[in-house]
Amino acid sequence: MTVSREVELDGHIIDSGTMGTAFSIVMDMGGSFTVEAFDIGRRKDEASYARLLVEADDEATLQSIVHELHQHGANPADPTDATLERAPADRVVPHGFYSTTNHPTFVRYDGEWLEVERMEMDCAIVVSEGEHGPRAYTRVLNAVEAGDRIVTGDTGIRVEPPERPRDTGGTFGFMEGGVSAERPSESTIRQIATAMRETKAEGGDILAVCGPALIHSGAREDLARLVREGYVDALSAGNGFAVHDIERDLYGTSLGVDTETLDHARHGHKHHIYAISEVIREGGIEAAVESGTIESGVMYECVVNDRPYVLAGSIRDDGPLPDTITDAVEAQAAIREQAHGADMVLMLSTLLHSVAVGNCLQSTTPVVCVDISPATVTQLLDRGSAQAVGMVTDIGTFVPLLAEELVGE
Amino acid sequence: MTVSREVELDGHIIDSGTMGTAFSIVMDMGGSFTVEAFDIGRRKDEASYARLLVEADDEATLQSIVHELHQHGANPADPTDATLERAPADRVVPHGFYSTTNHPTFVRYDGEWLEVERMEMDCAIVVSEGEHGPRAYTRVLNAVEAGDRIVTGDTGIRVEPPERPRDTGGTFGFMEGGVSAERPSESTIRQIATAMRETKAEGGDILAVCGPALIHSGAREDLARLVREGYVDALSAGNGFAVHDIERDLYGTSLGVDTETLDHARHGHKHHIYAISEVIREGGIEAAVESGTIESGVMYECVVNDRPYVLAGSIRDDGPLPDTITDAVEAQAAIREQAHGADMVLMLSTLLHSVAVGNCLQSTTPVVCVDISPATVTQLLDRGSAQAVGMVTDIGTFVPLLAEELVGE
Amino acid sequence: MTVSREVELDGHIIDSGTMGTAFSIVMDMGGSFTVEAFDIGRRKDEASYARLLVEADDEATLQSIVHELHQHGANPADPTDATLERAPADRVVPHGFYSTTNHPTFVRYDGEWLEVERMEMDCAIVVSEGEHGPRAYTRVLNAVEAGDRIVTGDTGIRVEPPERPRDTGGTFGFMEGGVSAERPSESTIRQIATAMRETKAEGGDILAVCGPALIHSGAREDLARLVREGYVDALSAGNGFAVHDIERDLYGTSLGVDTETLDHARHGHKHHIYAISEVIREGGIEAAVESGTIESGVMYECVVNDRPYVLAGSIRDDGPLPDTITDAVEAQAAIREQAHGADMVLMLSTLLHSVAVGNCLQSTTPVVCVDISPATVTQLLDRGSAQAVGMVTDIGTFVPLLAEELVGE
Amino acid sequence: MTVSREVELDGHIIDSGTMGTAFSIVMDMGGSFTVEAFDIGRRKDEASYARLLVEADDEATLQSIVHELHQHGANPADPTDATLERAPADRVVPHGFYSTTNHPTFVRYDGEWLEVERMEMDCAIVVSEGEHGPRAYTRVLNAVEAGDRIVTGDTGIRVEPPERPRDTGGTFGFMEGGVSAERPSESTIRQIATAMRETKAEGGDILAVCGPALIHSGAREDLARLVREGYVDALSAGNGFAVHDIERDLYGTSLGVDTETLDHARHGHKHHIYAISEVIREGGIEAAVESGTIESGVMYECVVNDRPYVLAGSIRDDGPLPDTITDAVEAQAAIREQAHGADMVLMLSTLLHSVAVGNCLQSTTPVVCVDISPATVTQLLDRGSAQAVGMVTDIGTFVPLLAEELVGE
Repeated sequence: MTVSREVELDGHIIDSGTMGTAFSIVMDMGGSFTVEAFDIGRRKDEASYARLLVEADDEATLQSIVHELHQHGANPADPTDATLERAPADRVVPHGFYSTTNHPTFVRYDGEWLEVERMEMDCAIVVSEGEHGPRAYTRVLNAVEAGDRIVTGDTGIRVEPPERPRDTGGTFGFMEGGVSAERPSESTIRQIATAMRETKAEGGDILAVCGPALIHSGAREDLARLVREGYVDALSAGNGFAVHDIERDLYGTSLGVDTETLDHARHGHKHHIYAISEVIREGGIEAAVESGTIESGVMYECVVNDRPYVLAGSIRDDGPLPDTITDAVEAQAAIREQAHGADMVLMLSTLLHSVAVGNCLQSTTPVVCVDISPATVTQLLDRGSAQAVGMVTDIGTFVPLLAEELVGE
Repeated sequence: MTVSREVELDGHIIDSGTMGTAFSIVMDMGGSFTVEAFDIGRRKDEASYARLLVEADDEATLQSIVHELHQHGANPADPTDATLERAPADRVVPHGFYSTTNHPTFVRYDGEWLEVERMEMDCAIVVSEGEHGPRAYTRVLNAVEAGDRIVTGDTGIRVEPPERPRDTGGTFGFMEGGVSAERPSESTIRQIATAMRETKAEGGDILAVCGPALIHSGAREDLARLVREGYVDALSAGNGFAVHDIERDLYGTSLGVDTETLDHARHGHKHHIYAISEVIREGGIEAAVESGTIESGVMYECVVNDRPYVLAGSIRDDGPLPDTITDAVEAQAAIREQAHGADMVLMLSTLLHSVAVGNCLQSTTPVVCVDISPATVTQLLDRGSAQAVGMVTDIGTFVPLLAEELVGE
Repeated sequence: MTVSREVELDGHIIDSGTMGTAFSIVMDMGGSFTVEAFDIGRRKDEASYARLLVEADDEATLQSIVHELHQHGANPADPTDATLERAPADRVVPHGFYSTTNHPTFVRYDGEWLEVERMEMDCAIVVSEGEHGPRAYTRVLNAVEAGDRIVTGDTGIRVEPPERPRDTGGTFGFMEGGVSAERPSESTIRQIATAMRETKAEGGDILAVCGPALIHSGAREDLARLVREGYVDALSAGNGFAVHDIERDLYGTSLGVDTETLDHARHGHKHHIYAISEVIREGGIEAAVESGTIESGVMYECVVNDRPYVLAGSIRDDGPLPDTITDAVEAQAAIREQAHGADMVLMLSTLLHSVAVGNCLQSTTPVVCVDISPATVTQLLDRGSAQAVGMVTDIGTFVPLLAEELVGE
Repeated sequence: MTVSREVELDGHIIDSGTMGTAFSIVMDMGGSFTVEAFDIGRRKDEASYARLLVEADDEATLQSIVHELHQHGANPADPTDATLERAPADRVVPHGFYSTTNHPTFVRYDGEWLEVERMEMDCAIVVSEGEHGPRAYTRVLNAVEAGDRIVTGDTGIRVEPPERPRDTGGTFGFMEGGVSAERPSESTIRQIATAMRETKAEGGDILAVCGPALIHSGAREDLARLVREGYVDALSAGNGFAVHDIERDLYGTSLGVDTETLDHARHGHKHHIYAISEVIREGGIEAAVESGTIESGVMYECVVNDRPYVLAGSIRDDGPLPDTITDAVEAQAAIREQAHGADMVLMLSTLLHSVAVGNCLQSTTPVVCVDISPATVTQLLDRGSAQAVGMVTDIGTFVPLLAEELVGE
């Protein structure tokens, strides 16, 4: 027995690789296809259209293939409404639930296509009737509630992977083709600065995800300037980042190293614990800024300039600070809000927090990822973002050069 | 004005480097010293003794120097009782609190030396009167309670850093001198196996700290054998490790890769979410084992053979599983109990969890650290453990070879 | 003014990505195209055909585009003979010379297509009249002689990039999609062993490119077994590899470490120099084997079993051995012969020698690359080989497991 | 039977660790010791003195121990003249030859201590009678000639390892304690600049060892400024470095990437070959500068400002250029001259050439090593230099910041 279904592709499906990918998927997964219609864009500004008849030996295989084609932008030719099924219990998905990609997605409901809100990957899609009509939105597993109407199967869903930039121009065109430590560093920094300026000019928000290496490597003052001058609208970090930043303010050291003279203060780690203890005594970072205990630094500038921050806890933390969200699920929820509100994201020397933020981003959000480890940069870029710049460089020279570019000496 | 204090060193203070370190500390920190007495061990089995008069220009500098000397095993010659001060509030330490090392430590109280219990680094020491007399024990900052009597200053404290092994023999002698990928791999694995056998023969407990790479790289079955055969007494991991292990049992894949055939199941990440959803439906891992849903793997062997495990949450997690401790402070407390009960620790391909466990270990606990990244191995070994073996190798070949060595083919 | 040229593509041009690449090249380089004909393979076993009219504003741009299209398998629709120009001097190419890819290539000469012999990248193509008619072959720059007839421009050249394997089967299908340390290690080793057995069964030759880490990490005896048992037909290495191997035989150490007991022989480097000195005294490796001075190891097995080896010198070398080719150009020539004769290449823990060998390989030669550094594996695989397997693992466990798989315990 | 020998140590043998090391060596190697005399420096500016009687079970073990003690600065108490033996053939050392360290070394000859000239490690020491009396100097194995009088055994040799700086001050004090990517980058660069200025002020010569990443990453113009302004007196590099530098001048690309606009010139590698071909046509780099073919860049500044350079060949090279020394032994000899003449060495993003240079340096020569890979920096620093600074950073931001520091914008 052979079963079959028709799928359609349109857009710049040749040069974006969509069509090649679709062919590969069918063959890799044991199916076969016939090209029933193919209308090629004859010029570079014309879109193409293809309709494939996909065949497989059994329904299960066919479903797998069609599901996979979906994820890559090949949608059923003759769509019906999406199938909805109730979640049987809190945090339990119905069998066959549709697991999202991070691409813009639409769900067919009562014959209409609803754009799925708060798009991010590895979620369920819930459809509900709201005041202003039906809505579709993502829910992570732990937010699923018993009775939620959840999309299952593959029908009635349309995925639109962003197409790659069509020419070399455009700020984010410059990084395609892999991560390498041997790229022209100063020129790349200039282009990142340009992208940040453009984002701000368009009223966008820039989220900085920051690791403690920023402080150790002496980039603290320059990052603080970027916050003060309005180039960082929100901050996502861990407890350690904030403690190092505050330790520097209170004791002039970062994990015991004086970042100016490079002298190793022998009381290193003690300062770290003291800094936490002092903030606890004051009741939190904001209170410590208001009381005059904390007088400079990244956290200081965030408080003074009203830039929201999320500090997420980890099992490695000392303390933690009162401001740190120690529950991972709560912290994820806070990070999710930040990610959904960001128009550009800088991932600066932290793998853990960058992955957490990246997990919540739609594939259309521009991302800049800077780390001295090529493996970290590769891992962060390898998540399907259409506009991603990776730079293997030293955060301790990157941030000063970026600040100089953006706000001068 | 010059202030001074006498400090003493004894033991194998020349070849362990203790004496050289003490000299360097005084000079680096701006003090000076006179060697008032020196009795050198004339043979290799004789200990040495030295008494130094340390001088500095002011009391603050002197205190800093003496504090630092403490941390490295040079103790005041004429000890008085330790100074105790009440914690002013929950999670706030008194000024000048003594921040611990991870070495065995003693506190002088009423003329007696109390050994500090539950020794680990970066903690405060609390002295309390118990039923059976006074006790001293460590407390992390977040466990400090208002009114705790906390050791401050440097007097009345004795630190005893472990001496390095005195000859090339001994299982853990073989790793001194740095981490390198170019060490004889099979021979090293044999020596680790010997150390594990000895630990078990002496009734000790082995704690395995495990990262998800163990599952991806195909080492799952061999790790499960080690649990079953009694070479792993407790497990410390993250939510991801357990989910990958269970996904393999339920769907035959690990993040979508079939670890036998290497075929890439196209539904990859969906299996991951399903696995979590199924366990939630059952009410937890133990329930899922009992109901027969989970039938093999590392978590299965832990449940069936009654090996306790701690799964700590992180902001990267999917789900999480009901068994995962999502609060970082609670998770740390659980990890702390594991660490204090371990007689040997295997750190297998996870930086985050290994750091969390390592933070809670006394310097005398033997540690084996295996990772494919030299930087990870170096970072984990660089914490003052006296008995640490690092191995830069592939966890996917290490665990099978270790299992073969310990329990045969 | 607009200039244009027709190019053709055929084969599995959709799923191999060739057509997408062609579209992208034209657009990236500032040209435009019209699809004049397109005959799509309607089923997975049917090839496709496309003819594009490529346009650009000037001849220089058009030539650049057409040249680039060539490199990726899009050939002029209406070919004329290739243009030949005389090399003006030794080691000097005529302006506009055609620089080769590593793909199978054909040159049109007197209306006939000649397959280019000794295909490798970054060379010039020389056409000469031989006894049996005209021949085309590659020449590296330093082998070009005054008067050589060298292909210039882009006309009359056809490049045929190998198509990617069409299904998941096939030994070398398993590595597509990047290099990761978290792949199932034992399963991958089994598949490499299978590929080696098949190569031998078909009468092919396996070239092993070896770095000194092989010896340090204790894999020497297992590699020697593979040579003895006929799984390594030729060896490419540096002076250091051979010296370490011989040092192990003469003194039981490798750079001073006893690879069995892991004891650090304190005379380490002296043994290294002695080993070289002894071989010089004997007159070379072969003589030292014959005189009974060298009695075991990789070099010993090569001599006894008549497997040719090339030892290339480097500025880091001690000695060197009399067998080492110290001149880089001569050494390259010897490596080139090895590479052209190999039907499968194992690159084992050496970047320098692997790059040198890889530079001389046609893209159709299967390559296995094993290194503990992900960056090394990525760099080596990133050279357009159609059949390449990368494995990030420890050479000290890889070779023993491979030997066990191939020749048993 | 027990055999014994007396050895002496003097200087700051406690805090430099020399004495601890000596104790460890004896015990590790199976001997025992008695401290016959010990005169401790009672204050930080006083040296100490110790005399040990070292015992072992047999003469071979004792010799091994004494040899090893030598290498670390413990010298026989009652020295006799060094033993000299004739080299039996060219490039063959007598049995028991003394293999050098890289520390300042003295040889006792006719009752006088001769300082060994051209000190470097892993060499033989030759003593010859010259015009102005006897001389001792190192010879690498391949320079040993039949009949050379070569030092054997351990008697009559004194090694003086440099002591570590005694306080935190001093430019090169700041790097002790390992390599980390998380050090304050801008402050470190300022301190390197200061050290360079001091070296020049004292009339010293700075040797820059350069890898091609310098050019790719856009640091070429800033390095050229440093050459022009007199901060680089000599250059050591490979063929690739020079070709990339010249390609940039001739075609505006580096391996095909325009380092200003970041556009990827599609003819990438062809430019590389052309650049070589053009230089060959001119007859060499100097000729190409003189003819006006090469008009800018690092090599240009070297020629115009008369800074000598050594370009060493490798089996990876294209071309090579006529200036490249293709024979590894000849290239080593040229590098050796450079190394011996250098008062400070910058190792910039090249492992191969840095190792080659480092092999020829005495341990007293200050070294700065900059690379983005921590493993490379660690490997280069781990060679016993007493004055070494390692920095894990991006060469593409390091060189511009260094140039700004030294010669302004």
